Amino acid sequence: MTILGIDIGGTKSVVGVADESGNLLAHKRIKTPNVLGPQINIGMILPAAYDVIKQSGKRISSIGIGCGGPLDRKTGVLHKVPNLPGWEGLCLTDIFSEEFGVPAYLDNDATAAAMGEAMFGAGKGVDHLVYLTISTGIGGGIIIGGKPYRGVGDNAGEFGHMKILPDGPPCKCGDHGCLESLASGTSIARIAREGLIDNSQSALLRLADSHEDVTAELVAKAAADGDDFALRVWSEAMYHLGLGVANVVNALNPRMVILGGGVTRAGDQLFGPVRKVVSERAMKPLAADVVIVPAANGDLVGLMGAFAVAIEER
Amino acid sequence: MTILGIDIGGTKSVVGVADESGNLLAHKRIKTPNVLGPQINIGMILPAAYDVIKQSGKRISSIGIGCGGPLDRKTGVLHKVPNLPGWEGLCLTDIFSEEFGVPAYLDNDATAAAMGEAMFGAGKGVDHLVYLTISTGIGGGIIIGGKPYRGVGDNAGEFGHMKILPDGPPCKCGDHGCLESLASGTSIARIAREGLIDNSQSALLRLADSHEDVTAELVAKAAADGDDFALRVWSEAMYHLGLGVANVVNALNPRMVILGGGVTRAGDQLFGPVRKVVSERAMKPLAADVVIVPAANGDLVGLMGAFAVAIEER
Repeated sequence: MTILGIDIGGTKSVVGVADESGNLLAHKRIKTPNVLGPQINIGMILPAAYDVIKQSGKRISSIGIGCGGPLDRKTGVLHKVPNLPGWEGLCLTDIFSEEFGVPAYLDNDATAAAMGEAMFGAGKGVDHLVYLTISTGIGGGIIIGGKPYRGVGDNAGEFGHMKILPDGPPCKCGDHGCLESLASGTSIARIAREGLIDNSQSALLRLADSHEDVTAELVAKAAADGDDFALRVWSEAMYHLGLGVANVVNALNPRMVILGGGVTRAGDQLFGPVRKVVSERAMKPLAADVVIVPAANGDLVGLMGAFAVAIEER
Repeated sequence: MTILGIDIGGTKSVVGVADESGNLLAHKRIKTPNVLGPQINIGMILPAAYDVIKQSGKRISSIGIGCGGPLDRKTGVLHKVPNLPGWEGLCLTDIFSEEFGVPAYLDNDATAAAMGEAMFGAGKGVDHLVYLTISTGIGGGIIIGGKPYRGVGDNAGEFGHMKILPDGPPCKCGDHGCLESLASGTSIARIAREGLIDNSQSALLRLADSHEDVTAELVAKAAADGDDFALRVWSEAMYHLGLGVANVVNALNPRMVILGGGVTRAGDQLFGPVRKVVSERAMKPLAADVVIVPAANGDLVGLMGAFAVAIEER
């Protein structure tokens, strides 16, 4: 079994080829800005896919695709995906299956990443785990008894839209006070930009070229450098993220919570406070049962998830 | 198969006999005030159990016990249970198994009730459901693929300790702002009692004999009668309960959420606002997938759960 994996994101996508044990034979990262729409983006993904297949020297036997939801994994069709405007109604599995002449399978990127971590990453051999991606948004995937748990409509694991502050800031989902509106990369940047108006002395403004260039990564950097304002913004986001993880732990009593996505590149700056909040605020026996670890597949967590989608459907 | 079911609570217990289809042959409710300690309480449960067995005219073949947790269902031993002071370390399965000469099985009462509803109640034939008991405390049980999901330490479903207001009131678990501290029967009564100091004109004080006699039931009654203060207390509790259920729906995408326990006797006064909050604040496709219904086993939800514990272990 040789798999073409396609991890489609709102700003970049990753394609790659692997065998059924998840050994990566070739991969390539390409920019796919969502403002360009689906035609142009798919037009950029296809040649990259041909490249990695050629590089691998193999014939592919199936295709696994991970993509932001909501989507219908049974038909392969995207619903209205917040990060992919204009893609609604596209049948991704048909497009790629027809192009390459092999079966294609689609799943929510967070569920895919959870499967990838369970098969080839930090969650290998772990029965009950939850994966959370802390990125542009916050998504989740649940593995129960080694298998993805998807719920009745394939949409379980929407932990990003857990209400953490019922009267908190607006969220892209239309509600407010969701975990995603308080602790995603985009939200950390937004909170920092809003606060900078009253904190113009912050070193953050020297790190970023302008207000608009403030990112979660720069907030983390300024906080690590000891900037008071950045520290406050970062600590509050980590507090809210910790509460979210504590709620997941209380709900599911998992053995492991895996955190991945761009914001987790902050490393101990993220895992330290999150672990502390969980140990203080989840119920004692459940907090004692769980370890909170980074995704072993690192920046390739989405691609490894895409391979897992095809392997799981075999 | 004839089962002796024992549902042990902090103020009352229920014993009964049923066949393996959950047909109730006899049952009896007895007062077991937790202040009397385990010896006296078990001393009252045993004769009641002999009574119902005699009444049923059958020989029992196994015993199912539901009890507040945390507990170790594999050994049958109670940990430190908030509602049963002094019971820590007791092996309930040994006590009842030795007395009646048949095998005995123990489970957390909320998980037991979830199984009971799945086997003989509102959740018959439903693959994915969550049961929440809104009573002295708030507990939860999860059914996935028709089977109880317990997590790695048998403690999954602690939805009562989900943080709803991170800076909210203290909770019996030692944390604060938990769902249980905002919407359990005990908490609704506590919030009302506290608020009565500044709202001494409330009709609630005429319904109750004194401050100390204010209960969640009386708050619901005064609210139904149009008392402003009681309405505010009740509505806020229902809002928080709705947020908790919305979070459960977003996390697990269940087909059904079953609400049971004393506070749900308020009927539409509870289900109306909870359904409204879920439809407004859970993600649309997940809110559309779920129905929120009362426990079909009503006041016997705990006893039916105890039967299910024995049936499931068969």
